[in-house]
Amino acid sequence: MPDYKAPLRDMRFLSDEVFDFAATYQAIGATDATPDMVGAILEEGAKFCEQVLAPLNRNGDEEGCQWQDGVVTTPKGFKEAFAQYVEGGWNGLAADPAYGGQGLPSSLGLMMGEMVAASNASWAMYPGLTHGAMSAIHAHGSEEQKQTYLTRLTEGRWTGTMCLTEPHAGTDLGIIKTRAVPQADGSYAITGTKIFISAGEHDMSENIVHLVLAKLPDAPAGTKGISLFIVPKFLPNAEGEAGERNAVVCGSIEHKMGIKASATCVMNFDGAKGFLIGELNKGLNCMFTMMNHARLGTGMQGLSLGETSYQGAVRYAIERLQMRSLSGPKAPEKPADPIIVHPDVRRMLLTMKAFNEGNRALAYFTAQLLDLSHGQDAEQAAEAEDLLAFLTPICKAFMTDTGLEVTNLGMQIFGGHGFIREWGMEQLVRDCRIAPIYEGTNGIQALDLLGRKVLGSQGKLLRGFTRIVHKFCQAQAEHPQLKGHVAELVRLNQQWGELTQQIGMAAMKNPDEVGAASVDYLMYSGYVAQAYLWLRMAVVAQARLDAGSDEAAFYQAKLATCDFYFQRLLPRTVAHLTAAKAGSEGLMKLSAEQFAL
Amino acid sequence: MPDYKAPLRDMRFLSDEVFDFAATYQAIGATDATPDMVGAILEEGAKFCEQVLAPLNRNGDEEGCQWQDGVVTTPKGFKEAFAQYVEGGWNGLAADPAYGGQGLPSSLGLMMGEMVAASNASWAMYPGLTHGAMSAIHAHGSEEQKQTYLTRLTEGRWTGTMCLTEPHAGTDLGIIKTRAVPQADGSYAITGTKIFISAGEHDMSENIVHLVLAKLPDAPAGTKGISLFIVPKFLPNAEGEAGERNAVVCGSIEHKMGIKASATCVMNFDGAKGFLIGELNKGLNCMFTMMNHARLGTGMQGLSLGETSYQGAVRYAIERLQMRSLSGPKAPEKPADPIIVHPDVRRMLLTMKAFNEGNRALAYFTAQLLDLSHGQDAEQAAEAEDLLAFLTPICKAFMTDTGLEVTNLGMQIFGGHGFIREWGMEQLVRDCRIAPIYEGTNGIQALDLLGRKVLGSQGKLLRGFTRIVHKFCQAQAEHPQLKGHVAELVRLNQQWGELTQQIGMAAMKNPDEVGAASVDYLMYSGYVAQAYLWLRMAVVAQARLDAGSDEAAFYQAKLATCDFYFQRLLPRTVAHLTAAKAGSEGLMKLSAEQFAL
Repeated sequence: MPDYKAPLRDMRFLSDEVFDFAATYQAIGATDATPDMVGAILEEGAKFCEQVLAPLNRNGDEEGCQWQDGVVTTPKGFKEAFAQYVEGGWNGLAADPAYGGQGLPSSLGLMMGEMVAASNASWAMYPGLTHGAMSAIHAHGSEEQKQTYLTRLTEGRWTGTMCLTEPHAGTDLGIIKTRAVPQADGSYAITGTKIFISAGEHDMSENIVHLVLAKLPDAPAGTKGISLFIVPKFLPNAEGEAGERNAVVCGSIEHKMGIKASATCVMNFDGAKGFLIGELNKGLNCMFTMMNHARLGTGMQGLSLGETSYQGAVRYAIERLQMRSLSGPKAPEKPADPIIVHPDVRRMLLTMKAFNEGNRALAYFTAQLLDLSHGQDAEQAAEAEDLLAFLTPICKAFMTDTGLEVTNLGMQIFGGHGFIREWGMEQLVRDCRIAPIYEGTNGIQALDLLGRKVLGSQGKLLRGFTRIVHKFCQAQAEHPQLKGHVAELVRLNQQWGELTQQIGMAAMKNPDEVGAASVDYLMYSGYVAQAYLWLRMAVVAQARLDAGSDEAAFYQAKLATCDFYFQRLLPRTVAHLTAAKAGSEGLMKLSAEQFAL
Repeated sequence: MPDYKAPLRDMRFLSDEVFDFAATYQAIGATDATPDMVGAILEEGAKFCEQVLAPLNRNGDEEGCQWQDGVVTTPKGFKEAFAQYVEGGWNGLAADPAYGGQGLPSSLGLMMGEMVAASNASWAMYPGLTHGAMSAIHAHGSEEQKQTYLTRLTEGRWTGTMCLTEPHAGTDLGIIKTRAVPQADGSYAITGTKIFISAGEHDMSENIVHLVLAKLPDAPAGTKGISLFIVPKFLPNAEGEAGERNAVVCGSIEHKMGIKASATCVMNFDGAKGFLIGELNKGLNCMFTMMNHARLGTGMQGLSLGETSYQGAVRYAIERLQMRSLSGPKAPEKPADPIIVHPDVRRMLLTMKAFNEGNRALAYFTAQLLDLSHGQDAEQAAEAEDLLAFLTPICKAFMTDTGLEVTNLGMQIFGGHGFIREWGMEQLVRDCRIAPIYEGTNGIQALDLLGRKVLGSQGKLLRGFTRIVHKFCQAQAEHPQLKGHVAELVRLNQQWGELTQQIGMAAMKNPDEVGAASVDYLMYSGYVAQAYLWLRMAVVAQARLDAGSDEAAFYQAKLATCDFYFQRLLPRTVAHLTAAKAGSEGLMKLSAEQFAL
């Protein structure tokens, strides 16, 4: 595992210089989150991640989780690290003070989350799922449920899960079979099998709170008949503490390609006592509350693992001596030049750097919207909600697909050593590989973006974002150094609308046109959104240089990376545009049998 | 592990209908290789791969190789399978009859190799490395060395290795430290450490013949001072059989991301007795003989693993029920539609199918050149050699990069189940991941293609291929169904030359321009070469349909896949072209320190 150093400079560049989080914090009444306070929190958080979590990462992969008779043991040190995390108050950082949280902004929680996942992606799953459960209970739970469950989850004494998937039902939650039978005491008897339940069973907390999707015996068919239940591993006693053992058991854990120290559980509910949360048959809506948050978090995993991979690759490229530069020796005193002299190694490093920093900007921009959506200004909050709805699937899919590309490049830079477990570069690829799959595959994100969000709003959600891009481009149209890139962004932004209209027209005649275009449409959208964010960063960097900053090397690197993005990565939009326009006919021609000929 | 069925129909489509291997076999005097004979051999080979090798694949991954005190134990069944392989005569299939081989064409050996690697990529390494050693000894060994070593290698009683890499020297063989000290008896005492030695130690053969790069004490510096030595694990006795143990020991084996059942060894040579092969200080040339063959073989791994992944994905897409088609239920009698109805699943399957079949065509086209290069007609052989030199790096890099994309898509189609080891889809990704790295990273292949082959020949090697494409396009310019695609290929083919000229001009001023363009240039080349091969397949398929073939479904699928390739994959050339033209300046701007800011 390459050493991880939290990229605090780049994080602060975005939060302070590009997006001015401080102003947002003021606007939403998060007055505790002063720049000094935020700085101190991030530094403490960085220390915890670098010194406590990162050292456990490689062994966690080697050791994995162990299952025996329903009991799951996490790798050495995981439990203690969680206790330290809770002790440090990290679990409730961005949680509601009414239920034991510190009430700091969501964006700060996400910044901490970035560092946690970068140091130890498996470990990050345990608090990650807990946060998902917290947000669902916060949004939909009764006051009593909040007092009992949310408080203990926030304190980190209990942890949470999301129990959606069943063996035959992943994407398609409408066909789940888990049953909830009403009981005389107002509770429900939950029976069924859930699979792929992250943190479903482990040894890190006193209790585990499962949020379970199930159907009442007389529920309507499909997704309109799904309800959400709280099913605790131990039922709360009169004091609200973990009491009697409930009838939910971990039947086994999965053996996976990566995130091996995250317990992925088969959970068997055998008439377990459950409590309805939210309204009957509205369970999917409740679940979406936690899924949107989780999707942004999943997108962050692409960034986090990409960052760790990049740090390892840069160090290796500076240390590893191999071949001479094509333009003459650069380190003649050594037996060979460091491989960072080779243009193709730089191409790989710059691709990693450009995607990481662009993804970080995309994530923080979105996190700021998350903060604004919690603000008092109703109009601003609604606008932020719309932008969030639009950007969430892009963050999830684009950041994980590019994160996978980044971790693969990091491994490639190591050559044969990248394939060897010892160096840890291949673990980052394996750990990252789940991110384009879970929390809704990237294909599902693309359908959500194009079908539900963009076309479903008659283009309104897209226009909410392209308008922002348009205004920015207008303001920067004459920027002395950047106007060329700005003009390119103007062109792509306009083309985005045209592409959408074209697909929308075709989809009215044939709904398959949406699925035929969706993934390439999402990737096109991701590249354009990132181009916008790269220019926002470049404008700030140029201004700092113009003002004679004493961090010239940092800002020049930003500008050079922006140029690289526009020259080498953004042109991929052409391929995605062409593919997105290709239509469904060519995809639907073959019969199922012909695929197998 | 998904079941593997050798794609014999598609293999015969290429060998018989598209490329007419039979005519080549006649022309090069391989008169034994009649179509009937070839058919029988492939069917027997398929049986062996499907029934003997494939069932060992998953367990091989789980069990891995075990090292103890220098002894390496391969997974259960590996040794027995190798004995069966040797018994069946497969090891010497394409080897020289003068030394125990069957003298069948190289292309047939490669077709068998495709099936072997598709069934069990780890196992394939043992005969694969042996074949590499055989070709080096065949080309450069003395008659005595051939009698002693080549014969036993061909018989499969002994196996071989290639010992190039050292801890500090991978790509950069000029800086190897292994020393060869001349001895009074004409042999050499070899001392040094080699790493990443596939099949360096194992329990499958009586003896292991290491081909080792080393330097004499007074050798010239750099690559011009490298010699090649035969260093057998057991020294041949008077009868040529394995005798006294030589001073070469396996110090440890690597723990890797994939191909876990292939023993990747650290080999310690401690004054081991070695015998010079070929001329002193010409070792690198000798090694290239085996490397070119090995590079084509490595490219085939991308195809092989992609094929197995595709077969698994198609079966899953037909069986797995999830969601309804956007255009209305397709299997209303079932709880959901099979996922193969969804356009995006089809997009993924067609991408896999298009790359696999395109890669197979590229590989077989190249294999035919390999046959022709062994033929009697000197002019034709020389022409084939040139084309081979040009196509080998494309095959190695393009087929492995796209193979990795294909195996990742196969995993993605399985959703969460793809990430679970049980299904075997993730193993294919892990096993494939080494292919873009070893045998010269894909970055090195790209430098070889653009720098050494294309610019190094003043464009001659490129023109040798573009001329073939040009002639084909002229002949098909008016093809009723395909002329649109032909026109696109004409355009790309011409653009290829222009791109080359542009880079060549820039490179005269600055050699870094080659490295700055190389990988995108190679990928551009791969897409265009595959477009040519897709059209060759399409022309044949259309002709069969026009003639009223009773295999219409097969040929229609070919045409549809060709259309898909032109619509959805070939447009990626635009992004590669733009990146290849972007130049080196943007890559060289940052200092090493700035990468780490």
